[in-house]
Amino acid sequence: MKPPRFSQNIMLILIISIAGLCNVELYAQSQNRPNFIVIFADDLGYGDLSCYGNPTIHTPNLDRMAFEGQKWTNFYVGASVCTPSRAALLTGRLPVRSGMASNKNRVLFPDSKNGLPQTEITLAEQLKKAGYATAAIGKWHLGHKEQYLPTNHGFDYYYGIPYSNDMDRVAEYPNGDYWSQQDDAIKTEHFNVPLLRGTEIIERPANQNTITKRYSDETVKFIKEHKEGPFFIYLAHNLPHIPLFASEEATGKSERGLYGDVVQEIDHGVGLILETLRDEGLDENTIVVFTSDNGPWLPFKENGGSAGLLRAGKGTTWEGGMREPGIFWGPGFIKPGLVTDLGSTMDLFATFSRMAGVEIPKDRIMDSYDLGPTLLNHDSSTRKHIMYYRGTELYAVRLGDYKAHFITQGAYGQFGDREEHETPQLYQLNHDASEHFNIAEENPEVITEIKELVQSHRAKLMRGKDQLAERE
Amino acid sequence: MKPPRFSQNIMLILIISIAGLCNVELYAQSQNRPNFIVIFADDLGYGDLSCYGNPTIHTPNLDRMAFEGQKWTNFYVGASVCTPSRAALLTGRLPVRSGMASNKNRVLFPDSKNGLPQTEITLAEQLKKAGYATAAIGKWHLGHKEQYLPTNHGFDYYYGIPYSNDMDRVAEYPNGDYWSQQDDAIKTEHFNVPLLRGTEIIERPANQNTITKRYSDETVKFIKEHKEGPFFIYLAHNLPHIPLFASEEATGKSERGLYGDVVQEIDHGVGLILETLRDEGLDENTIVVFTSDNGPWLPFKENGGSAGLLRAGKGTTWEGGMREPGIFWGPGFIKPGLVTDLGSTMDLFATFSRMAGVEIPKDRIMDSYDLGPTLLNHDSSTRKHIMYYRGTELYAVRLGDYKAHFITQGAYGQFGDREEHETPQLYQLNHDASEHFNIAEENPEVITEIKELVQSHRAKLMRGKDQLAERE
Repeated sequence: MKPPRFSQNIMLILIISIAGLCNVELYAQSQNRPNFIVIFADDLGYGDLSCYGNPTIHTPNLDRMAFEGQKWTNFYVGASVCTPSRAALLTGRLPVRSGMASNKNRVLFPDSKNGLPQTEITLAEQLKKAGYATAAIGKWHLGHKEQYLPTNHGFDYYYGIPYSNDMDRVAEYPNGDYWSQQDDAIKTEHFNVPLLRGTEIIERPANQNTITKRYSDETVKFIKEHKEGPFFIYLAHNLPHIPLFASEEATGKSERGLYGDVVQEIDHGVGLILETLRDEGLDENTIVVFTSDNGPWLPFKENGGSAGLLRAGKGTTWEGGMREPGIFWGPGFIKPGLVTDLGSTMDLFATFSRMAGVEIPKDRIMDSYDLGPTLLNHDSSTRKHIMYYRGTELYAVRLGDYKAHFITQGAYGQFGDREEHETPQLYQLNHDASEHFNIAEENPEVITEIKELVQSHRAKLMRGKDQLAERE
Repeated sequence: MKPPRFSQNIMLILIISIAGLCNVELYAQSQNRPNFIVIFADDLGYGDLSCYGNPTIHTPNLDRMAFEGQKWTNFYVGASVCTPSRAALLTGRLPVRSGMASNKNRVLFPDSKNGLPQTEITLAEQLKKAGYATAAIGKWHLGHKEQYLPTNHGFDYYYGIPYSNDMDRVAEYPNGDYWSQQDDAIKTEHFNVPLLRGTEIIERPANQNTITKRYSDETVKFIKEHKEGPFFIYLAHNLPHIPLFASEEATGKSERGLYGDVVQEIDHGVGLILETLRDEGLDENTIVVFTSDNGPWLPFKENGGSAGLLRAGKGTTWEGGMREPGIFWGPGFIKPGLVTDLGSTMDLFATFSRMAGVEIPKDRIMDSYDLGPTLLNHDSSTRKHIMYYRGTELYAVRLGDYKAHFITQGAYGQFGDREEHETPQLYQLNHDASEHFNIAEENPEVITEIKELVQSHRAKLMRGKDQLAERE
């Protein structure tokens, strides 16, 4: 506990956030720029943590993090599948702008030709301008070729698997049925996924049983080695994406079965990371965010997660596909409490940039809002809408409390076929988070307002060239 | 904070719980019997508190209570509707034994002839044996005639409405449609429900707008007047049962709308009660329990609550009907943490009796298990099964992690008709709390085991005479 430093930080951030007109360059030179750690789970649902209502997955470290910090309950991702969601977080832009969304392939594959364009500015590149040491640990999935890897996108260091853990499959599922796979018959060797350090393959197939643990350990190591700060760590776990793997120590521990073991192992890692921050005296000067890339992968039944009270899951523009746990922790900065304001993973770009004193790019349209005032003072979030894209098509829009679905469609054989709605379906999400009660008829003026927003959004939309379509 | 007293209490409870063979009479004479407060909501769903995953209902006091105490996630009620659920809590017995379950009327009505039989022993009568001052504040619903009222069932004091807040209706709903009632058109005068003190009507119609607030205030008053202890308060709110009412101060405060206002007003009352306990130095010697009588009343759409990830709601034997938030707080006794063991409102009878040093009745079959070892030490709960009765019929049984549905049926026009299953539906609830994946075929041995349990349960079952059937 370092009270003097604490108050310096608070002052600094207050100045940055409240008197937002100052010359941000000034702060970039300050010694008190906070460290940032983003912990990003894969396919974890809104309802998969104890503090978000899961009955049998024990996540005491995330629960404590939420209790000591802010628990956001209207926190969104930029897309309902991996690649575009990750692009959104790191660029602060809708994937349709960067070309990281496609109607041909929803994500990148090991035979994809392209990746995140060099013209995009990542959060890591942004923070490097203010002297941050930067590390990407874990899943990348924004291009596996050398020019697309993290170390060519602003990260000093990379350790991880460059795409999803079910890719490079070299064995058939035992019973031949993809959706009803039996976990106990699936081995890490059935997937020839590489593990990289920097741009070098250091293990193939990556031992996925130990990967969660190793990602957490790498993060702890990077913190210790860069404790003089400032640093930015993007820890993107490959799990609980299916196939599920846990270490020997974690296996058989959760009443929720293997899925629970996997989530609890991630939670355990969160505990180690926060403990390291406390031990190193960095807790008052670090902000840790926990969220996930998209909703649960439901057709896998109990091997998939839960969206809690939200409708549908991964791959859809229903809430279960795109609303995620969003936990912000930072005892030196963050005012504890429940936050129901709108937020998005895309907002981390502006929020961290602002706190680090780095100017937001002005040569492109950004979709990133500074959450600082909400994090520090519970002031209203400046984000007022959420765009729900599927590929390059806008399916739904949330404006304030209301969400209009122009197109609805399930995913992976569940939740129905594509349907275009002449009168959009309308839900009041703060009253009806489960999207049960369509109130379009009673609220034509809300639909008009949302349509106007769509029109102005479309008028300015410049679509990036599709980076996901081409495969070798 | 009173460390010496604290450790005395711990010692006392450890002796009572671990060395359970001692003469309980001894402890009944002790000065350190804990006070008990049970706060019982009406129709609040599993998913209606922030700490159980609700996105827009702010319940900071209950969240803190859960964080400082134990949050139970497999905590059940004795029936999925009011009257039998309340009978179960207060008698520690399945309602089918006491006659408080019926296939003719699911609950008592203002023209019902009977009520809870005098032959039943209530938790209040039980605790009076150890010298407790006892108060029932709020909804009773176990018989409105004088001989059935709380003051004739072991409570020294009663203040409340003797049945549901939608009874004694004297006005039609504005649009004639019961399920789609418009809250803003519903007034407290549309229901001629009486408010009683003792056995006297002191207000009719009861002003329901202020009733939640007044119940909390009465509780605070009773605590202050009985601070020398020991006391037992059964605070059974009439809300958030529909029709919804909140005080002027609470109205318009919640982003969840009126339903949220109502729940937040209950939470505010919880805050006042805990604050009073702290102010009076009673926090180390009091156990507070929060739960609800049954799941949310779903056909009322956004006026009803949410069962979160659980299936269906009030009136059904699906999890949404009978699994509830269960929060145990008592800094002097309760070891904080998440508890996934089985528990039931019926267990409060044995748990409190044991802690108060009162012997459990031996002349009747009880359905009450001592939760003390779990509350104090996180030892495994001794409760291993849950019986899901609808009226006097056993519909489903949970044994450990598994639940078998012999009969399924929706309620209030939702979730389907009655269906008897030759092969019961089987769910692994710790993996699949939402009851999505029927695994009966793969687990015939589990079904056999559950059938054996049913057989032995039925062999010993003595059904009480139906007290709900007769009306005037």
